[in-house]
Amino acid sequence: MTAAKTLFPVELMQKVEAVFLNAGLSPTQAEPVARVIVAGERDACKSHGIYRIEGCLRTLKQGKVNPTAVPQLTQDETAIVRVDAKGGFANAAFEMGAPVLAERAKVLGLAALVINDCTHFSALWPEVEALAAHGLAAIAMCPSYATVAPTGGTKALMGTNPFGFGWPRIGHMPYVFDFATSVAARGEVELHRIAGKPLPEGWAVDADGAPTVDPAKALAGAMLPFGGHKGSAISMMIELLAGVMIGDMTSPEALAFLGSTSTLPRHGELIIAFSPERFAAARGGLDPGRAEVLFDAIVGQGARLPSQSRFAARAVSDAQGIRLSADEMAMLERLQKGGLAAVS
Amino acid sequence: MTAAKTLFPVELMQKVEAVFLNAGLSPTQAEPVARVIVAGERDACKSHGIYRIEGCLRTLKQGKVNPTAVPQLTQDETAIVRVDAKGGFANAAFEMGAPVLAERAKVLGLAALVINDCTHFSALWPEVEALAAHGLAAIAMCPSYATVAPTGGTKALMGTNPFGFGWPRIGHMPYVFDFATSVAARGEVELHRIAGKPLPEGWAVDADGAPTVDPAKALAGAMLPFGGHKGSAISMMIELLAGVMIGDMTSPEALAFLGSTSTLPRHGELIIAFSPERFAAARGGLDPGRAEVLFDAIVGQGARLPSQSRFAARAVSDAQGIRLSADEMAMLERLQKGGLAAVS
Repeated sequence: MTAAKTLFPVELMQKVEAVFLNAGLSPTQAEPVARVIVAGERDACKSHGIYRIEGCLRTLKQGKVNPTAVPQLTQDETAIVRVDAKGGFANAAFEMGAPVLAERAKVLGLAALVINDCTHFSALWPEVEALAAHGLAAIAMCPSYATVAPTGGTKALMGTNPFGFGWPRIGHMPYVFDFATSVAARGEVELHRIAGKPLPEGWAVDADGAPTVDPAKALAGAMLPFGGHKGSAISMMIELLAGVMIGDMTSPEALAFLGSTSTLPRHGELIIAFSPERFAAARGGLDPGRAEVLFDAIVGQGARLPSQSRFAARAVSDAQGIRLSADEMAMLERLQKGGLAAVS
Repeated sequence: MTAAKTLFPVELMQKVEAVFLNAGLSPTQAEPVARVIVAGERDACKSHGIYRIEGCLRTLKQGKVNPTAVPQLTQDETAIVRVDAKGGFANAAFEMGAPVLAERAKVLGLAALVINDCTHFSALWPEVEALAAHGLAAIAMCPSYATVAPTGGTKALMGTNPFGFGWPRIGHMPYVFDFATSVAARGEVELHRIAGKPLPEGWAVDADGAPTVDPAKALAGAMLPFGGHKGSAISMMIELLAGVMIGDMTSPEALAFLGSTSTLPRHGELIIAFSPERFAAARGGLDPGRAEVLFDAIVGQGARLPSQSRFAARAVSDAQGIRLSADEMAMLERLQKGGLAAVS
């Protein structure tokens, strides 16, 4: 019987990468995917941790992702850096594009990275954090598949469309947020269903478009955006900029293409990077201390910085390792030994 | 006694411009300010209509805005277009910068307009609409003065920090939204106070940081962001990008500079413009019909497009004129005759 175990991030990385290599992913695809999954587990962001491995493999098993895709980067005279993921995971495409995006943003003040034709499962915070490490602020966004009704509407149209932002800090972890533009993640509705608990009011509508607190009815209906018509508008902005504008699928198109939400969504992603130093240069240079005044004021009045608990978990994981349960260790073993045959 | 009257937008424009010229604004400053005020009144967006004239004049009377400022545009090899408003209103600076921003965005795919050292009272929708008329998508944002507490906090730190977005449509008014990142506009709290009505729950905290539904206590305390911690994070993003990054005042700095919220805020603004055609060029060109599918789906399920009622009001105003009450006509007359002396 498999026992619970504590693994350092580098040890977990080896295990997760081995699972993906064993399932047929090329090293080009396996390593970046493993990296974000380990980052999620390390940061106690379980919704994007090792629990995600099986979904990645299921998508592979169903032939919806290219396991050996080699992303292709193109650049021209514009501020747009493009990476065609060639049907592989977004992660390899991002890692190829990020340094080029950073270089362009430092020259031009701002630049965009467009990722096309990718399978997407990653949180956006690893990406905006990677750009913050280059000294850049960044906004990242992408559609998903249609599971969210517009405010005032009755039927799923938009995705859970995440929106992420990062701001670099000197001597501190960056200011980072990354959230679904739905009022809650779809996984949270699923957790309520499993626990037999009603949803909070305002999370969802049923298949007829009527408000519901029944998680099963919500899953058959649609979730609602966060923040009423304002969140709904931001979600639509993401469909337009990170779907229509970049010539890639919107959330209803992604759902039609895949036929169900049982595999990971296929679409594109838009990342905008800003060089605060380049922007502030004409105004006597950047004063990062002015941002620190804001962060200190937030913490000083008892509020929290986004990602604060994630960074705290990271410090513990880096120092003491990540505690995985017996079930989690068994899952890793099962997937590594069984490969795609072990995936339901 | 002054009677109610119906004026066409062009007639109201002459009246409002005359008020500002008479109060000492140069034509360079007066015309753009009058244009956005008339646009607000025309669109039945009363919160940014002629009711704003007196606040503009009060700010002028107190010496907080330069009535004859000549904005200065600078451009370099980056994607950043800068306009120094020279202490004048943001509007003249925007009108100077917008065509240059549009040109840069069409060449580079995306570009930014930074406005510095301006007095700001305008809604952001006239700006993103102006860029949509160039065939561009645009995001606009700016701080305000500190009147909003971060979610989980107790004291005003952020401004009502508006966030605007526009997407160009062929044969339709653009898709446009523009909202405060506070749960409600400060003016709405004021209206509840005047009407003696309690606020909805979740709008505000009192001076001790405790939740309150008392409008007077809310005005002495702080408003709350829309959408909980997500809206709070977006508001902070605006402080960072459109305050610290562009080398201009954050909301607490603007409040400290002015000493009160009785005059219009002084800070900067950031506008990011995108060329959907340039972005989509590498993907077989833009298909605007894919955006129309989304808009049709929203309207088709009984939800509304943002700005829908504003555009409906505009059509009526353009065809039949804008109905102003006797009080409103008297106010215009009083301000035109009395100039700054008529301003409290």
